[in-house]
Amino acid sequence: MSTRSTAPLAVVAFPEHGRQTRVAVGKTLLDAAHAAKFEVSNVCAGRGVCGKCRVIVSAGSEHLSPIDNLERMSLSEQDIKQKFRIACCAKITEAGSIEVQIPSESLTQVQQLLVAGVQPEVDLNPLVGKYLITLSKPSLLDPRPDLERLVEALRAEFHLPELKTEYLALTRLPYALREGAWEVTATISKDGVITWVEAGQTNGRLYGFAIDVGTTKLAGYLVDLKSAAVLAKASVSNPQTAFGSDVISRISYASKGASELAELQCMVIDASNTLIRECCVGANIEPREVFHVVMVGNTAMHHLFLGIPPKYVALSPYTPVLRSSFQTNANRIGILGNPGCLLSALPCVAGFVGADAVADVLATQIHKSRSMVLLIDIGTNTEIILGDERRLICCSAPSGPAFEGAQIAHGMRAEVGAIERVWIDQKTLEAEYSTIGGEKARGVCGSGVVDAIAGMRRAGLINLSGRISPEANSLRLRKTNGLMEYVLAWKEETQTEHDIVITQQDVEEIKLAKAAIYAGTSILTRHLNVDTEDITRLFVAGAFGTYVDPYSARAIGMYPDVPLGRISFVGNTAGAGARMVLLSEEQGTEAQRIAETMEYVELAADKDFPKAFTDSLYIPHRNAENQPRSTG
Amino acid sequence: MSTRSTAPLAVVAFPEHGRQTRVAVGKTLLDAAHAAKFEVSNVCAGRGVCGKCRVIVSAGSEHLSPIDNLERMSLSEQDIKQKFRIACCAKITEAGSIEVQIPSESLTQVQQLLVAGVQPEVDLNPLVGKYLITLSKPSLLDPRPDLERLVEALRAEFHLPELKTEYLALTRLPYALREGAWEVTATISKDGVITWVEAGQTNGRLYGFAIDVGTTKLAGYLVDLKSAAVLAKASVSNPQTAFGSDVISRISYASKGASELAELQCMVIDASNTLIRECCVGANIEPREVFHVVMVGNTAMHHLFLGIPPKYVALSPYTPVLRSSFQTNANRIGILGNPGCLLSALPCVAGFVGADAVADVLATQIHKSRSMVLLIDIGTNTEIILGDERRLICCSAPSGPAFEGAQIAHGMRAEVGAIERVWIDQKTLEAEYSTIGGEKARGVCGSGVVDAIAGMRRAGLINLSGRISPEANSLRLRKTNGLMEYVLAWKEETQTEHDIVITQQDVEEIKLAKAAIYAGTSILTRHLNVDTEDITRLFVAGAFGTYVDPYSARAIGMYPDVPLGRISFVGNTAGAGARMVLLSEEQGTEAQRIAETMEYVELAADKDFPKAFTDSLYIPHRNAENQPRSTG
Repeated sequence: MSTRSTAPLAVVAFPEHGRQTRVAVGKTLLDAAHAAKFEVSNVCAGRGVCGKCRVIVSAGSEHLSPIDNLERMSLSEQDIKQKFRIACCAKITEAGSIEVQIPSESLTQVQQLLVAGVQPEVDLNPLVGKYLITLSKPSLLDPRPDLERLVEALRAEFHLPELKTEYLALTRLPYALREGAWEVTATISKDGVITWVEAGQTNGRLYGFAIDVGTTKLAGYLVDLKSAAVLAKASVSNPQTAFGSDVISRISYASKGASELAELQCMVIDASNTLIRECCVGANIEPREVFHVVMVGNTAMHHLFLGIPPKYVALSPYTPVLRSSFQTNANRIGILGNPGCLLSALPCVAGFVGADAVADVLATQIHKSRSMVLLIDIGTNTEIILGDERRLICCSAPSGPAFEGAQIAHGMRAEVGAIERVWIDQKTLEAEYSTIGGEKARGVCGSGVVDAIAGMRRAGLINLSGRISPEANSLRLRKTNGLMEYVLAWKEETQTEHDIVITQQDVEEIKLAKAAIYAGTSILTRHLNVDTEDITRLFVAGAFGTYVDPYSARAIGMYPDVPLGRISFVGNTAGAGARMVLLSEEQGTEAQRIAETMEYVELAADKDFPKAFTDSLYIPHRNAENQPRSTG
Repeated sequence: MSTRSTAPLAVVAFPEHGRQTRVAVGKTLLDAAHAAKFEVSNVCAGRGVCGKCRVIVSAGSEHLSPIDNLERMSLSEQDIKQKFRIACCAKITEAGSIEVQIPSESLTQVQQLLVAGVQPEVDLNPLVGKYLITLSKPSLLDPRPDLERLVEALRAEFHLPELKTEYLALTRLPYALREGAWEVTATISKDGVITWVEAGQTNGRLYGFAIDVGTTKLAGYLVDLKSAAVLAKASVSNPQTAFGSDVISRISYASKGASELAELQCMVIDASNTLIRECCVGANIEPREVFHVVMVGNTAMHHLFLGIPPKYVALSPYTPVLRSSFQTNANRIGILGNPGCLLSALPCVAGFVGADAVADVLATQIHKSRSMVLLIDIGTNTEIILGDERRLICCSAPSGPAFEGAQIAHGMRAEVGAIERVWIDQKTLEAEYSTIGGEKARGVCGSGVVDAIAGMRRAGLINLSGRISPEANSLRLRKTNGLMEYVLAWKEETQTEHDIVITQQDVEEIKLAKAAIYAGTSILTRHLNVDTEDITRLFVAGAFGTYVDPYSARAIGMYPDVPLGRISFVGNTAGAGARMVLLSEEQGTEAQRIAETMEYVELAADKDFPKAFTDSLYIPHRNAENQPRSTG
């Protein structure tokens, strides 16, 4: 690939998705799709055998390699007529313009889920509603004030209880009435506040916006509150990352003073407004037409978003400022939207179990499950929720940043060039791997490390206590500076021109990380007095959980020993839960009920946690048979 | 007085009031007091005979003329020992420093009233209260969020209903709790909102601020909500005057667009904040300790203060945007105070009868009167209220700016050099007058014009229909450009070196102005079917009404024919009413009830108004005997 930088480039466009990329001649359409940030299904890691990465080449097929026999094994004559190609087989042979469609079935479920998350059906009953009304014109004999005229007519026509009025609505009211020739549309919240008044008939247009404020990323969804349709989605990095990738360093910064707190708040509000603007442009809607914004996030993000000091969330006993649902005018914290737009922040549970966890429950409906369900949302702090319709219990396990590649010898974030999948042959002890974007390896990300350690354990290269065997007969095993390590990628294969290895220390770090989760889970099961077998479903939420191979995750003891068939990836359930609250007032009440009834276990204060943690510092765990379960 | 500019100056200080002025040798202490803007009682117009202008010279008496015989007629030996002087007699004889105290009985009732207004006793029960509470410290076993901990403790200790929290209070809460070592003082409004939390015990300090937003002037009062004491008062010009002295031109400007409206709003908010700052400095209180601000003003001022478009208040049928009491966080419109400070705007009645009129009723308690009461608050628009405990009726009479000196040949505002009092000898037909500040006359202000016309009428120089007689035998009567006029001051006596006259046209202007008031009053009496004799009390409110001589005002037919003994000057009742609402929630409810029940008569729509107006275009009015009533 030494010619890469000088190779001629082809332009590959994905008109349906509005994306375009330039890739070097010699690359495949799969490479192009990756470069354009699509996550195309690709079970065989680009070997042309699984046939999952089907795409349609709608123009420029003359710049591609002809369909070969391998490709024909996955394509029917009909497919070929419809211009289907297997993306990993179709090589770009010369510079030119190529147009590609990616059918949604060819996108990974991962990608679909990550943005959207599962979302149960919800009866449409949003917190704000629009009311079209025609008023009598004032006269010398009936000079009632504008507001009184409006309120009396609304109450009479719609049998509404007493109405209050949002201050900012008054600044618009007289003009709206006269511009609409006394026909206006009032937006009224369920608690009887007129939040805005528009001239004429606008009651067909009512929009909401859900924001999931993650520590690393914000995801936003523009929702039509008349049809429940998600009209646009967008995501953006959390700009607070400049003050540290973990919540603790941001809390420290925000705790320096009022202006530092305001600075972090501004950052996340600006990023949220970027999402709103982007989605509104995409859907051809004015931000002024957004009447309700629902926000979820972990407790620290929740506090920073609202500009509430998060200092004591980080200090024992980890006390949030508030836990209950909170509502105010969105304008007051600088959120873009209608001047009368409501902002709802979902309730939190505790310092480290936030509104996102409440939304997770709402979206997965654990609180209505007849049988026992476990939900794991893996992050620097991993939220674990266990329960059913009778009782819900949760904790936050301090799993640390190892799964994000931190504190791992050759660890890196899940970016292009990261080894994300690893297969170790149990006989030859050889490793195969795939990287993100298909580029030469630069390092290994969390899912790769988990795969590697699971593979090493299955191949007997690691024992129950996690010690890398010094005896196994493989060139890939060696001792450096007195510590054992396993070579994942030889330097010839890497961009860094150094071997990429998994060290004994890496195994220790992953053991600590996964032990926190495993121990947290076992504390919860102990509290509810349930066995692993009782867990009928394991929901894995969030980005990392969705990327990591469940077989490997279970093999290293990150998840309890449930059959693989019981594991479901639920994606961004935090965002899905926020959308549900947009769609229905009852879901907001439900969220409050969940937050109030969900029991919180502070692991730091649990007397059984130290032992549970120590018992989890094995691979998979002390109580496992020597070989971990290998089938689902 | 040609030496005035070169005369040596003495410094006269009024240390008790923190004022000081420089006056020329030869001037009196009364001149000095006027220069320092005191209004000293001065019934004899500085002739040394009434003895009302008693002051104490605490230092520098050697720079004054010795006590003469005239002065000794008003001072006892005891008074002289206590260093009393008659201010209009004590002349400054040489340059030097003099310190003077003005006992409050020597200030005019006018000045006392103008700032304060009458104010009935009110049971102290403010809308916001402070609650001192000690909380348990959070621990791993009790990690309840700060807000929950606070709310639960408050509810338990004070038996409070459900509590909500003002958004901004959350931004302070965690720090307040810890700085106070879990002892905090929460401020809670009567409707169950925690508006702020302070560290430690601050429940002895709770302040409110009342603002009367006049078209020309703002008056502010800092009130101790624990003792009902008025701690400081201040007034400032309404800076909106730059956009016109009348409400209509300001409404026009504000109606140009959102930024013009915002501009006018900012001006009045800035001026209000100046008052708050000034009063707080004076009373050694932090603006942060102000937890409730009550605002009154006419409907246009009310709308501009809140940033609500007043456009349609000025256009028939003169519809305000809202009439009812309005409350929001004061912060939201930029008012200085605690971040959780509440702002209450008193209710309005109609486009030209505003919250100030409602406050007038509250302060004068007309709505509780057993007998019929009339209240007149004279301005460009004159509010007239008539009624008793059973029924209240009001109107706004378009009296125009003539009483402010506009459209009068030599008219001017009530400023230094304005002729403010006129006496015309019924035999000699000669005029005597006094000017504001005792300076040479520059023109004549409203009260002077009213006095002059009343005097001319009594002296037979004007007939019932207001015609200046061309026959009377006086040098002061003459015809200029075919129109009759009466010379008030000869050019030798004036600063302008022109004669100051009252013209036939001036009489016509005043007739129009007073006719509006008289006709408005008669429409109200007709509506309630009462006779003038039934009016047991006539309250005259506001600055102009307090300055104008009631004997003259009645003589020209500005007031109905009630005995003078029934007329009471009630001063700034708008400010007094606002203070009552600060002191007691019930008064706020009462204000709302007054606004709702007070009947409004739109004179422009009243079929009897045109005739009533025409009948009032006489002096005093068509139905008067030829000579107006001359005794009270």
